[in-house]
Amino acid sequence: VPKVSPAHLEARKGQILEGARRCFARWGYEGATVARLEQEIGLSRGAIFHYFDSKWDLFWELAALDQTRALDAFTEHGLDAMMRVFVDGDPDWLGVYFEAISILRRDRDRFERWQARNPELQERAERRFEELQASGEFRADLELKDLSSFVGIVADGVVIRRSFGLHVDLAALTALLRSALAPPRQ
Amino acid sequence: VPKVSPAHLEARKGQILEGARRCFARWGYEGATVARLEQEIGLSRGAIFHYFDSKWDLFWELAALDQTRALDAFTEHGLDAMMRVFVDGDPDWLGVYFEAISILRRDRDRFERWQARNPELQERAERRFEELQASGEFRADLELKDLSSFVGIVADGVVIRRSFGLHVDLAALTALLRSALAPPRQ
Repeated sequence: VPKVSPAHLEARKGQILEGARRCFARWGYEGATVARLEQEIGLSRGAIFHYFDSKWDLFWELAALDQTRALDAFTEHGLDAMMRVFVDGDPDWLGVYFEAISILRRDRDRFERWQARNPELQERAERRFEELQASGEFRADLELKDLSSFVGIVADGVVIRRSFGLHVDLAALTALLRSALAPPRQ
Repeated sequence: VPKVSPAHLEARKGQILEGARRCFARWGYEGATVARLEQEIGLSRGAIFHYFDSKWDLFWELAALDQTRALDAFTEHGLDAMMRVFVDGDPDWLGVYFEAISILRRDRDRFERWQARNPELQERAERRFEELQASGEFRADLELKDLSSFVGIVADGVVIRRSFGLHVDLAALTALLRSALAPPRQ
């Protein structure tokens, strides 16, 4: 086996993931056969599954990239930037998540691994929520987990609408979300 | 064909729908075969499909009943009552909606009929939103469609969480939603 530089390795993985995303978006998760993945990625099945264990693993990595992007947007630029990630998402790619929900609902172990993925990122988001609550930007009359759960609920709901190609007004959405999270009147 | 009273007809349809709901919740939409529908409903396929055109039609009617229940709760008792309908929903039944999303995403005509279902109910909900905006309970600085779209987004997000059996704190959820929709400070 020839030696491969870390940079080359990452570039190859990136090529595979971007091709897999296009393939899932076009054909759906179930419809993304190995032959279609090969065609869209431009590599043989041997090469693809040398880097990733399974089709599920490809989806998992792509979902982790989405999650990183959304939570980075939140910690660096705030809620509006995070919601923009979902509002601007490609409807065909977002639709793949609903196939994934059906798969995760049927497999409790897989779901628990899914929930526990990327703990470092989740902790960073939680710390940011704590800071915003401490600074008075977020309300303190409710528990932090109820605030973060609400943001997750809104994000999931946006993904459903966008997966159908329905319009979501980002300015109105973020105004509503900011009011929900702001300290109440008295 | 023997004459059947309207009351008997409704009872028979109700029996079929409740059996179909149990069957979908247990086996999923795809897994609810005609044989399993017969077994759960306790009627032959001939009897079932005498009243309903197709499996999709059974799902459609059940979803329409859910929608009626949620919007009746809203117009009669307010947002909290509506959210309770979703929070208290059976996770296995709610999971069927995500299979339906995949079906609707692939079939534009079906999706458009889905969006336009039950116009009378949708109008009634819209009028209630208008009243709440006119009375000052809901904010008037955003368009009515952005408010109703936000409530729909939150409801969809709650359905995702509940379909996984995850806890949603109804009191915190409704406090957040009320703050989102209330007139802003100045």
